[in-house]
Amino acid sequence: MIHQLTIAQFSKMLHNLSKLFDQAALHAEAKKFDLAVLLQARLAPDQLPLVRQIQIACDTAKLGVARLTGKDAPVHEDNEKTVAECKARIESVIGYLQSFTEKDFAGYEARQVTTPRWNGKWLTGEEYAVQHVIPNFYFHVTTAYAILRHNGVDIGKKNYLGDMPYKGG
Amino acid sequence: MIHQLTIAQFSKMLHNLSKLFDQAALHAEAKKFDLAVLLQARLAPDQLPLVRQIQIACDTAKLGVARLTGKDAPVHEDNEKTVAECKARIESVIGYLQSFTEKDFAGYEARQVTTPRWNGKWLTGEEYAVQHVIPNFYFHVTTAYAILRHNGVDIGKKNYLGDMPYKGG
Repeated sequence: MIHQLTIAQFSKMLHNLSKLFDQAALHAEAKKFDLAVLLQARLAPDQLPLVRQIQIACDTAKLGVARLTGKDAPVHEDNEKTVAECKARIESVIGYLQSFTEKDFAGYEARQVTTPRWNGKWLTGEEYAVQHVIPNFYFHVTTAYAILRHNGVDIGKKNYLGDMPYKGG
Repeated sequence: MIHQLTIAQFSKMLHNLSKLFDQAALHAEAKKFDLAVLLQARLAPDQLPLVRQIQIACDTAKLGVARLTGKDAPVHEDNEKTVAECKARIESVIGYLQSFTEKDFAGYEARQVTTPRWNGKWLTGEEYAVQHVIPNFYFHVTTAYAILRHNGVDIGKKNYLGDMPYKGG
């Protein structure tokens, strides 16, 4: 299940996130403003702007699976200035995610996971996945969505969730 | 893992969500406005207000675990008008979640799950949990957080995530 929750589902959500910018581009064109303005938009003056929400969503997915599997993650410089660069960052992370197999996660539940910010403290892999990576990932994807929504971009829940593999009916 | 992802983690997040209102109450007191005003706040005129985000977060957790386990869920009337009533709704759902054990989820992965909106179509329990319940739950919790944050309430990521069971260090 961990492969579905992280690799498959994070890839799907990052793809959905990237597509939100296509709706944002239509809005920018209709309203005749520079699309890149939205990258600096925020919901509160002391909250991070859209570009950082995108970068952190990407890093949460990338570093989450790297730490759960004990592998190295590629470095990204956080220097995106345009929507095209944000989309490329997202594609790069989706590509990285696709390099993982179910086997890479063997024993992840009990693995001791730490980050540079935790001063030597650690969580088990299961705690890290359930209580840290997943809620953080959705936090930044939803906040990015909310910033676009607040700025009038024509998106709805279906753009966020993406297609469902419905059967029957 | 499904019990951790839904019962334990949804309960934790709903508790964190309820506590956001304590920070909101301090803000309302300092700025001398009626706390209940925030329940009607939105990020966009065509997005649902805070009270609905709370109700839907609660329903997503409640109906998610009910459908994954094949059990009945309690009915809530969506008639909350005050923050105290929202907090009671959240507590009620946490109480319901706590009635589930790991065993209740036996075989959930392959269970055919549907909702009244899907016109007879269905997802497997694993698809429903991973692609529908979890992303929807975090969407509404994060949107509730974003509405409060946008209105100046003094909250940060730690209020959203809650305490981590760190070890060592």
